[in-house]
Amino acid sequence: MIKKLLIANRGEIAVRIIRACKELGIETVAVFSEADKESLHVQLADEAYCIGPTSSKDSYLNFTNIVSVAKLTGSEAIHPGYGFLAENADFAELCKECHVIFVGPSADAITKMGTKDIARETMREAGVPIVPGSKGIIKNAEEALSLAEEIGFPVIIKATAGGGGKGIRVARDEAELKKGIQITQQEAATAFGNPGVYIEKYIEDFRHVEIQVMADSHGNVIHLGERDCTIQRRLQKLIEETPSPALLPEVRDKMGQAAIKAAKAVNYTGAGTIEFIFDYKEQKFYFMEMNTRIQVEHPVTEMVTGTDLIKEQILVASGQELSLKQQEVTFNGWAIECRINAENPEKNFMPSPGKIVMYLPPGGLGVRVDSAVYPGYSIPPFYDSMIAKVITYGATRDEAIARMKRALSEFVIDGIHTTIPFHLKLLNHEKFVSGDFNTKFLELHKVMES
Amino acid sequence: MIKKLLIANRGEIAVRIIRACKELGIETVAVFSEADKESLHVQLADEAYCIGPTSSKDSYLNFTNIVSVAKLTGSEAIHPGYGFLAENADFAELCKECHVIFVGPSADAITKMGTKDIARETMREAGVPIVPGSKGIIKNAEEALSLAEEIGFPVIIKATAGGGGKGIRVARDEAELKKGIQITQQEAATAFGNPGVYIEKYIEDFRHVEIQVMADSHGNVIHLGERDCTIQRRLQKLIEETPSPALLPEVRDKMGQAAIKAAKAVNYTGAGTIEFIFDYKEQKFYFMEMNTRIQVEHPVTEMVTGTDLIKEQILVASGQELSLKQQEVTFNGWAIECRINAENPEKNFMPSPGKIVMYLPPGGLGVRVDSAVYPGYSIPPFYDSMIAKVITYGATRDEAIARMKRALSEFVIDGIHTTIPFHLKLLNHEKFVSGDFNTKFLELHKVMES
Repeated sequence: MIKKLLIANRGEIAVRIIRACKELGIETVAVFSEADKESLHVQLADEAYCIGPTSSKDSYLNFTNIVSVAKLTGSEAIHPGYGFLAENADFAELCKECHVIFVGPSADAITKMGTKDIARETMREAGVPIVPGSKGIIKNAEEALSLAEEIGFPVIIKATAGGGGKGIRVARDEAELKKGIQITQQEAATAFGNPGVYIEKYIEDFRHVEIQVMADSHGNVIHLGERDCTIQRRLQKLIEETPSPALLPEVRDKMGQAAIKAAKAVNYTGAGTIEFIFDYKEQKFYFMEMNTRIQVEHPVTEMVTGTDLIKEQILVASGQELSLKQQEVTFNGWAIECRINAENPEKNFMPSPGKIVMYLPPGGLGVRVDSAVYPGYSIPPFYDSMIAKVITYGATRDEAIARMKRALSEFVIDGIHTTIPFHLKLLNHEKFVSGDFNTKFLELHKVMES
Repeated sequence: MIKKLLIANRGEIAVRIIRACKELGIETVAVFSEADKESLHVQLADEAYCIGPTSSKDSYLNFTNIVSVAKLTGSEAIHPGYGFLAENADFAELCKECHVIFVGPSADAITKMGTKDIARETMREAGVPIVPGSKGIIKNAEEALSLAEEIGFPVIIKATAGGGGKGIRVARDEAELKKGIQITQQEAATAFGNPGVYIEKYIEDFRHVEIQVMADSHGNVIHLGERDCTIQRRLQKLIEETPSPALLPEVRDKMGQAAIKAAKAVNYTGAGTIEFIFDYKEQKFYFMEMNTRIQVEHPVTEMVTGTDLIKEQILVASGQELSLKQQEVTFNGWAIECRINAENPEKNFMPSPGKIVMYLPPGGLGVRVDSAVYPGYSIPPFYDSMIAKVITYGATRDEAIARMKRALSEFVIDGIHTTIPFHLKLLNHEKFVSGDFNTKFLELHKVMES
């Protein structure tokens, strides 16, 4: 078992990992940028070291400094959290070379899933449903045109090295496709250093449903059900819930089995998420991508399954077997997560960093808050604007929603603007309450004006 | 369904009830003493009214003012919480006369269970195990002596109107018994206005285990498992957990059935708790008393059963049937509650009221905080010293304990002394961790010096 672990991250996920370690009796080492010396993760860890200036590039993405701190402090493992180095195959490889356990999958699995056209082909071979489209990288515009005619417009052009909503473009006819391929290739070359693009049938009316998987190094892979992350703004998730209000039970099982196949196809270890495009009207699903890390929205899965996913990651990274088998995974009740960002929803979600003068998180039954802020803390403007996650649990979706409204209405964060007013309006929106919506919800409904 | 409810209480339980009402869409009316105008329950309720000066007698125990506020605000019901008027049959009766729903059992059930010798006889008739002892009130010392010889010394003398650790005295021989009866009768006459006493065999080596029951007005009674409240200081509970580490599964079932019998014997409605003296070595249990109200430690039951007991109280008081049947009650994992008091454990638990200058409750997976304090709040010295309850949930007792230690270690309450350091020492005490202890734990082990 790992005895000392370095957390190569900041904010709520760093705090989340420190908490799991404390409960497991593992010593913790925090790292921080110069802008983060007053951060909660620095205060909660057993040790903390500055690894560079404010810029992420020079601190939280600084391979050498992070691995050096791990070696100097005798940390046997590095947990990358999400973002930053979490899906960086080179970093995972460096850890391996330096004999530090990377809490995550192998560099090979990260690369296979991070290169979108390879992931697509790997899924095709593994028998995981994929959206109709090209086999590998598009060679030229002619190939793309002939394929688009075969699968039908609209199609979506995706950079193979893209992800998280970047490097994608929709084409509704031949002209858009020709132009789109050119632009996307140029952008991808600049942004990701890889101009490769591929095309897929563009499914417009879908929900984003994903499956949590967990795999150990002994060949065991389980899934822990789905999360519905259909409520997005500019491809950024805002609310996640489990179960999905739109998934039929028999499809849930199929999706879970497909996710396990996907993970096995790349010899996956640790926590991962298979994201699916879910055509809810047809109850059909297609592989979108795999996120080879723990996700922001992992708590909703923890609430309904009673599993501690971060502890499970650490156990698996220590070489242990999964603590539960598929048939031991049970699902109880309903959980919802709202991401609270330091943004002004009245002003087009403009970032709102600054000092929190009064802070009182909600409490009581069925309410969980994951955050790294405190009264008097100044939110730096340099990093992610998410400052808290509120997760509520209820016996039913209605109860989880009612509890979320109650929790958000008593959440006091004074001194900055937050997205709490946005969430409260959304939670009261009849379309949201009905559970019947797709990823275009926020384009179609002006929530802040309702 | 009740549409508007008055909360005749303060502190965390008032906040707890307001939260349940908000989730049910019920309007809330808070009442407060002059000392409590800055209290959180006043801020969270839809309406709030001052009902008198600082003294509880003139405010939170002021029947007329409370019922008047209920009538004037159109509140259809009054929730008494625990303490204050929660077990006052006269108040329950007044509510009935004024056509206000008292969220609790009938005045008759309160009286029957509140009069200890009647409760004992009622339990005897219902077939609930009771400690060997007198039938009803002791008439004279001769009767007591002959009975004590029959059941064997030591015996315990109890005032029939007592409770909560008051009006009881142990006698180890004839002389102590004679003297003890006389003194207890005198004390009881003064303190409770009723000199009646009875005697029972004194069981020295026991655990305090209680069963949560819930009953509706349609004759349905269920139990929701046990709580082990063996860790007490001067008969005040400090830590509660469920399940009990000492109860065998088959005895749990028997105890649950006995509790249901007890509730049925007094036509009970609402939430109630049957406390048992649990002779863990013999796995035998004896009726101690019934608390005819919601209890401080109800959250641990909520964590393992997934039931919202306050909502259930309100539904039942509205005339609805219980939302679940006995066979639908499931038990998952382990929950522990630590009562955080504004007291100095280094100075014999001396009260430590005052201003909280910094406050940051713990968060994350499996941690629940029920509290009514906030940064800048001044704890008044006039009421109960309990300022927060921390409840942790885990798959196992070890995980719940590890999580509690983690949660308490990150709980920031600056400006006053609290019992957090006491709890941390206790949670690290090998005897506590072993689960093998009785109600004398804190007499036998000097926790603060460990």
